[in-house]
Amino acid sequence: MAEEVLSAETAYKGRLLGLKIFDVKLPTGKVARREVVEHPGAVAIVPLLGGDRVALVTQFRLAAGRELLEIPAGTLRPGEDPIECAKRELIEETGYEAGELEPLAEFFLAPGYSTELMRLYLARALRAVGQRPDEDERIRVVEMGISDAWGLVERGLIIDAKTIVGLALALRRLGGGG
Amino acid sequence: MAEEVLSAETAYKGRLLGLKIFDVKLPTGKVARREVVEHPGAVAIVPLLGGDRVALVTQFRLAAGRELLEIPAGTLRPGEDPIECAKRELIEETGYEAGELEPLAEFFLAPGYSTELMRLYLARALRAVGQRPDEDERIRVVEMGISDAWGLVERGLIIDAKTIVGLALALRRLGGGG
Repeated sequence: MAEEVLSAETAYKGRLLGLKIFDVKLPTGKVARREVVEHPGAVAIVPLLGGDRVALVTQFRLAAGRELLEIPAGTLRPGEDPIECAKRELIEETGYEAGELEPLAEFFLAPGYSTELMRLYLARALRAVGQRPDEDERIRVVEMGISDAWGLVERGLIIDAKTIVGLALALRRLGGGG
Repeated sequence: MAEEVLSAETAYKGRLLGLKIFDVKLPTGKVARREVVEHPGAVAIVPLLGGDRVALVTQFRLAAGRELLEIPAGTLRPGEDPIECAKRELIEETGYEAGELEPLAEFFLAPGYSTELMRLYLARALRAVGQRPDEDERIRVVEMGISDAWGLVERGLIIDAKTIVGLALALRRLGGGG
């Protein structure tokens, strides 16, 4: 069922993203063109505080044209271990250091056109050490019960895919079902 | 909290995707660069058959380098109504015509760099009318209980974000909690 790559052309190579154009041969023999965004991969973290509370972050997202409420997340640096990346991003964005990081899932965000693979963790045993945002990020931390956060999903106020996946899987892991 | 766009440059404009580079002024006054993939938007459908069964599809995804098991989905054509797009894609990919289409959610898949907004529907009252795949798609339909599908999420065998979101929200809508 795989597609055989006949040719690949780099249309763009930037700081974070690349874009390649592939001509592929389908199992039927037909040739098709595919546009693929190359992304280094990312991590996201559901930070679980006492009393089944979670720490979410708000930040302005240019691609969405608005501020979104999300779980903390970030892009892998070259060669970076995903667990180390998750620890680093959690501290930078929320100011919490994770005593435990438990893998929840790995998933593609937009496999129709993006190579981005997201690794998702549940962070527990959190200790406040102070937020250290990147200089081009403006992030606000919002803490609430995880069931209340799921309520925001149901009401259409949390509209970020990784955040919905993270809350759904964390609720299952907690055994509550929300 | 918004970012003020100072300049925008089109780095790529293709068949499906575009890529723009923005210089933005942050609320702090600092200037930052943002790479943004422009996408026309998409729909995805959780097709619900009798007995709480769902129709999923497998297809090879070049960006993921493998075949994935997903809910049916597709990209909006220029000016296309999302509901019409959902009906069309559902027939093309699964061969089912939806008697009812109920909105489940709208969400961004990768708001850090992609404008893609996904509209998600629950399809019921399905009637088999015959699959009509695009000529460059090779799609196989897989039907299973929705709780079994969620089991594949938990076991890491469904690794597509929109599919995890769709199954989680459909389970809630059905009141089962899975």
